[in-house]
Amino acid sequence: MAEPKQNRPKARLPRGFRDRGPAEIAAERAVLETVRRVYEGYGFSPLETPAFEYTDALGKFLPDVDRPNEGVFSLRDDDGEWLSLRYDLTAPLARYVAANFQNLTKPFRRYQLGPVWRNEKPGPGRFREFLQFDADTVGSASPSADAELLMMLSDTLEALGLQRGDYIIKLNNRKLLDGVLEASGIALDDRVRRGIVLRAIDKLDRLGVEGVTALLADGRKDESGDFTKGAGLSADQAQRILAFVAPDAKDEEAHLNQIATLVGTSPIGAAGLNELEQIVKLLSACDYGPDRILFDTGVVRGLDYYTGAVFEAQLTFPVQNEAGETVVFGSVAGGGRYDDLVSRFTGQMVPATGVSIGVSRLISALASRGLSVGAGEPLVVVTVMDKADAAASFKMVAELRAAGLRAEAYVGTAKFGDQMKYADRRGAAIAVIEGGDERARGEVTLKDLALGAELAKAVESRAAWTAERQAQVSVKRADLVAEIKKLLGPTSAGKA
Amino acid sequence: MAEPKQNRPKARLPRGFRDRGPAEIAAERAVLETVRRVYEGYGFSPLETPAFEYTDALGKFLPDVDRPNEGVFSLRDDDGEWLSLRYDLTAPLARYVAANFQNLTKPFRRYQLGPVWRNEKPGPGRFREFLQFDADTVGSASPSADAELLMMLSDTLEALGLQRGDYIIKLNNRKLLDGVLEASGIALDDRVRRGIVLRAIDKLDRLGVEGVTALLADGRKDESGDFTKGAGLSADQAQRILAFVAPDAKDEEAHLNQIATLVGTSPIGAAGLNELEQIVKLLSACDYGPDRILFDTGVVRGLDYYTGAVFEAQLTFPVQNEAGETVVFGSVAGGGRYDDLVSRFTGQMVPATGVSIGVSRLISALASRGLSVGAGEPLVVVTVMDKADAAASFKMVAELRAAGLRAEAYVGTAKFGDQMKYADRRGAAIAVIEGGDERARGEVTLKDLALGAELAKAVESRAAWTAERQAQVSVKRADLVAEIKKLLGPTSAGKA
Repeated sequence: MAEPKQNRPKARLPRGFRDRGPAEIAAERAVLETVRRVYEGYGFSPLETPAFEYTDALGKFLPDVDRPNEGVFSLRDDDGEWLSLRYDLTAPLARYVAANFQNLTKPFRRYQLGPVWRNEKPGPGRFREFLQFDADTVGSASPSADAELLMMLSDTLEALGLQRGDYIIKLNNRKLLDGVLEASGIALDDRVRRGIVLRAIDKLDRLGVEGVTALLADGRKDESGDFTKGAGLSADQAQRILAFVAPDAKDEEAHLNQIATLVGTSPIGAAGLNELEQIVKLLSACDYGPDRILFDTGVVRGLDYYTGAVFEAQLTFPVQNEAGETVVFGSVAGGGRYDDLVSRFTGQMVPATGVSIGVSRLISALASRGLSVGAGEPLVVVTVMDKADAAASFKMVAELRAAGLRAEAYVGTAKFGDQMKYADRRGAAIAVIEGGDERARGEVTLKDLALGAELAKAVESRAAWTAERQAQVSVKRADLVAEIKKLLGPTSAGKA
Repeated sequence: MAEPKQNRPKARLPRGFRDRGPAEIAAERAVLETVRRVYEGYGFSPLETPAFEYTDALGKFLPDVDRPNEGVFSLRDDDGEWLSLRYDLTAPLARYVAANFQNLTKPFRRYQLGPVWRNEKPGPGRFREFLQFDADTVGSASPSADAELLMMLSDTLEALGLQRGDYIIKLNNRKLLDGVLEASGIALDDRVRRGIVLRAIDKLDRLGVEGVTALLADGRKDESGDFTKGAGLSADQAQRILAFVAPDAKDEEAHLNQIATLVGTSPIGAAGLNELEQIVKLLSACDYGPDRILFDTGVVRGLDYYTGAVFEAQLTFPVQNEAGETVVFGSVAGGGRYDDLVSRFTGQMVPATGVSIGVSRLISALASRGLSVGAGEPLVVVTVMDKADAAASFKMVAELRAAGLRAEAYVGTAKFGDQMKYADRRGAAIAVIEGGDERARGEVTLKDLALGAELAKAVESRAAWTAERQAQVSVKRADLVAEIKKLLGPTSAGKA
C-alpha cells in the first residue's frame, strides 16, 4: 500500500510554526490557569471568537489578488469574500461589540485567550502563530476602569510567583503627550507625523536621546546605512518632546510641575493630567504604590490607537540572551485606553481599555526566574511479562488510577528488557514488575527509576547491578498502592 | 475620526463560524478538564501541533489554483508553497510521527485537543471550526492497546457523569468484514468498491436493510430523486455482507459461529477473530463487560483507513431533536486501529490506534442529561455611590478576592439605579451598597439578587418594594466577607 517513493510528501513543519511537547504544554497550562483565575476573580468573563474574520472587519485593506498575504493570512471564500485569520484579539472584540452592542451589559468586561497568526517573516524565537491573553473593559470612560486593569496585572504577576521588585508596571497617558504636541504647535490630526513621533519615542531605550532627536527632526541613518524619515519638527519642538519623555526632574513633584509647564494651556493635556491624577489616587488608596505601578513618561507604546492611559509591565531582573549577554528581560504585558474601538463599524465612539499578555515571553521570563512548573504528575509503568495475560497488569493500573495516581500498563509488543527502557525513556518514576514466581507468592517488584538512575551514576559499571538491586523492592501485591504512594514521596515524585 | 459611512465595514461573523460566551465556555472547560484528567491518568501525554500544515502533508492533493479550498482552507505562502489549516488531528500526528520517528519512545502515546477547520457548506449546528479531542497509541500492534482505549473511553464517559446504561461502546473489527468480503470473492485491493460497501453499511441505521441492499447491488435512488451508484455485488455477495452486519443469531455464541462461517478460510478473517478475542478477554478480565463495551458487527465506521478494531460510543437515552421529535442521541466518540499512519511519508507501516471525541456533540448530550456545569463562580458586584471615592469599593473587592470570592467594583459611569441593573444583568449573586450614612455608621448593605428576583416573582407588583427589602440586609463593614460567605450558601450561589 506504500505509494511510489517519488510521490511521497516530506514530513516537515511549515516555516515559522512549531510543535510543542508535554513539558512546555504543562508549564503554559499552569500559567494560563493562574491568569484566568485572577481575571475571573476580578469579574471578567470569557469570550471566544473564531479564528477567521472577514478581512474588511479586521481593519486591513482588502488584499490584492497577487499579494493576498500582507501581514495577515488571507484567503478567498467560495462565495468570493475574503477571510483572514485574526492577527490579534482586539479586532475580533471590536467586531463582536459592534455586532452585539445593543444587547451587551455595559461596561462589558471580557477576557479572551487564544492563538493569533501573523504572516510575517519568521526568525529565531519569532513564530507565525502564538498565544495572546487579553482582558478589556468596553463602555466605560472612567479612570477606575484603567486603574482596575493595572491592579489586576500586578496581582497576576505576583500570583505567578514574581516578587515585588522583580517587575514594575510603567504608566503614562497619551493625552499628556498630545498636550505637549498641541502646546508645541504640532497639529494632532496630522496622524502621519504623530505616528512618526510615537514610534521615535518608543525607541528611546534602544537609540538614546541622540537617535530620537534625529528621528524627531529630519531623520536618521542607521548602521546599515538605511535612512528613516523623521517627523520634521523644529529644534524647539523636539526639545519639548524630549523634556517630556526623558525628564530631568529630581522628584515626582518637580516632574509633574515640568509636565504642567510643557502642556501649558492645552485642553487635552489638562484632561490627561486629570485622568492620571484619578488613577494614581485610586492605586495609592488600594496600596498599589510606585514599587508596583510607576508613573513614567518614557512609556508611550508604539501603536497609534491608544487615546489615554498606556502602560507596560517590565521585568527588572537580568537574564542571559541568546548571545550569552546579560540583559534586562523587558516588557511582558501592556495595554491602555483606546476610545474608538467600534467607530470604524458604527461611527460611534465607545470608550474601552485593555491589557494584553504576551504568553510565550512571560513563560520564558518565569522559567529564567526558576518559576517554571513544567513537570507533570509522576508516572507509574506496569510491565507485562506474559503477553497472553496482560489482564494482571491492567488490573494493577486500574487500582493505581482509582487511588489518583497516573499509571499505564505497557501496550507495546517488546520484550521485558525493552519495556524497562521504555519506562526509563518515558521518564516514569516507578516501574512495576510481576514475574511468574512472584505472582505465585503474591508479590510484585517496584523499581524506583529515579533512584536507580542516581545510584547507577554514582557507582562503577561493574557495580551497576548492585545499584539496580538497591533501587528495587519486593512488596505484597495487596499493598501495591500503599507501597507506591510511599515511594512517590517528595524525593522521587515529579519526574514524569 | 469616524470614517465616512460608505467606507464602513459591516460587523458580522464569517459564514459558518460563531462566537461563544461564558456559559458555553465554562461547560466546555469542565468537560475538557475531565477528559484530560482521565487521559493523563492513563499515561497519555499532550502534544500540540500548529494550525497550519503543508497541504501535501495533510494528504489532500495540491489544490487547484482556481479552487484552492476543496474541503480544507488553503492558501499560498509567499514562498509559493501551499498551506492548509488542519481538518483533523490525525493528519498532523502522522506528520509529527514521520518527522520524529527515530527519537520517539514507542509506543508513542499522545493526546491532542484543539480546533480543526473544514471548508464545507455550513448548516444548522454545522460549523466550519470545531474542537476535537484525540488520543492515540502509535507503534504497537498489540490488541491491548485497543482494549486500553476502550476502557479509557468508558472511564471518561462515566467521569463526565454518565451512568452505566446511558451509553454503550460498540466494538467491531474491520478484518472481520474484510474476511467476509474475501470469502465472498470480492477483491480487497479494489479500494473503490470496498469504500462503497463501507459507506453503505455505515448507513444501515438510516436506510434499513432494503436501502443498504440496494447500495450493495446496483445503487439507490433517494426521495429527492438523486441516484447513488452501488457496489455492483451479486445477490449472494450482498446477502453474506448483510448477514454479517445485521445478524439474526440468538446469542453471542451463535453470532460468533455465524461469523466464523461467513469468513470461512479467509486469513484476514481469522486474524480479525483472533484480535477480537484478545480484546474481549482483556476487557472482561478488567470487568468492562457488555453493559459497557459490546461486540456489534453493525458498527463499521465510514472512514476508509481503519484496518482492525473499530468502535463507537453511543448515548442510549432519548432526546428531543430540533424538530421536537424524540430520538436517540447517537454517536459522541469513536475510533479504531489504522496501521498505515505514516506510510505515505516514509513507506513504512507503523501500527496505530486512536480515539476521537466530538466535543460539541458530547457537551450537548451531557446538557440534555442535566449534566451541564455551565455556571461559573458566583459574582459579587460592589456599587460605587460616590465616583470621586471609588477607593472604598475597590478595597471591598480586594478583601473579597483575598477570601477566594469573585468580585468586581463597578467601573462604569452610570448612576446608582443603573448600577443595580448592571449587577442584575451580569447575573451577579450579590450587590454591595455603601451609602454615605452607612459609611458613617460602619455598615454596608448586601442585596441578594437571586432571592430578590425570586421574591419579586412571587408577589404582586405593589408589594415588590417589600420583596426588595426582604432580600436586603445591613451588616457591619468589618463583617463584609463573613456575611457574604454566609449569603453565598448552597441556595444563592452559582448564578453568575
